[in-house]
Amino acid sequence: HVAGVDHERLTDQLRFVLEVDKLKRILRRNTLVDGSRRENDAEHSWHVALAARVFAEYAPKGTDIDRVVEMLLLHDIVEIDAGDTFVYDTELAQTQFKRESEAADRLYALLPKDQAEHARGLWEEFEARTTPEARFAKAIDRLAPMLANWHNEGGTWVTHRVSAAQVREKVAMVAEGSATLGAYATALINDAVGRGYLAP
Amino acid sequence: HVAGVDHERLTDQLRFVLEVDKLKRILRRNTLVDGSRRENDAEHSWHVALAARVFAEYAPKGTDIDRVVEMLLLHDIVEIDAGDTFVYDTELAQTQFKRESEAADRLYALLPKDQAEHARGLWEEFEARTTPEARFAKAIDRLAPMLANWHNEGGTWVTHRVSAAQVREKVAMVAEGSATLGAYATALINDAVGRGYLAP
Ligand SMILES: [Ca+2]
Repeated sequence: HVAGVDHERLTDQLRFVLEVDKLKRILRRNTLVDGSRRENDAEHSWHVALAARVFAEYAPKGTDIDRVVEMLLLHDIVEIDAGDTFVYDTELAQTQFKRESEAADRLYALLPKDQAEHARGLWEEFEARTTPEARFAKAIDRLAPMLANWHNEGGTWVTHRVSAAQVREKVAMVAEGSATLGAYATALINDAVGRGYLAP
Repeated sequence: HVAGVDHERLTDQLRFVLEVDKLKRILRRNTLVDGSRRENDAEHSWHVALAARVFAEYAPKGTDIDRVVEMLLLHDIVEIDAGDTFVYDTELAQTQFKRESEAADRLYALLPKDQAEHARGLWEEFEARTTPEARFAKAIDRLAPMLANWHNEGGTWVTHRVSAAQVREKVAMVAEGSATLGAYATALINDAVGRGYLAP
């Protein structure tokens, strides 16, 4: 017991912090930049949150980067229940929204009500891409695996026979969030096609 | 080439983002909350950045939580070169500052100058604990492995025969950053002693 503290509130917060530890065991399709093993969602979330800060100057003027970082720290938590959905898996994508909504219902609700609503709101904003913050967060989230794949001679693009057209759809999402990073991603993909990493 | 962009600056930023990927391969002594494997520095950094937000209300009034989060995202990057120093390893602790300073010289300097100075400044502030932000960041950083160890029947406390007195030194750092979290950590450690997880 801690004096002067809403004990139930603190216990809920602690339970949430302990529960989201499971994100460290959710594996993504892409590998680390050195190709040594698959990346997990927690370390990915750290990497994109940091990258959002480093690339902040390429967000549209007025974008609140603190909000972008907060969104990126929270954006994958639903995958604790829903699992990772490979961005090029069209079959799984059909059930993704339902699976992730149910996961959000359980996971964010572990927090005290005010914090739960705030966190879930940020996640929904991220998924809907209705604000500059959400579009920039999504741009960074899409750019990161492109960098890793490019540095791994194609990485999961090669393993899963991804085509240039499929990646260009994701590049469009990068461009929606940041003109500069979108142009960079386009140049990267053109180079990857030239190197034979992607089916043309 | 991307039109209208300082190409050298963007390249430096990309190089930094790719280089810090190595933090995912630096293992800490403590395990995940489920005890299944050792935790790496990148997923740890994500976890504490998120926890800082969840526990924000327990920071002293006026603490800038966005700055705390930024500090926590950056705080372990020096360990890419310097390695993890177990907080109870007194021998390694003697060379820690020198090793980490040299690491900071190399790693933060990969960024463009303005960003390099900003990042290094935040890391130095974190280590010196001269601001409420640094003290709160350090409190969260120290609290996290206590929670994991407590949930693992003592975890690394048992493996490395850590005493209650040693952990109480770290609890003091939690209390310096947050009175509430310090009181919670004290209660947790008393409980751990009662359960025999720590030598009294
Ligand atoms: Ca450390």
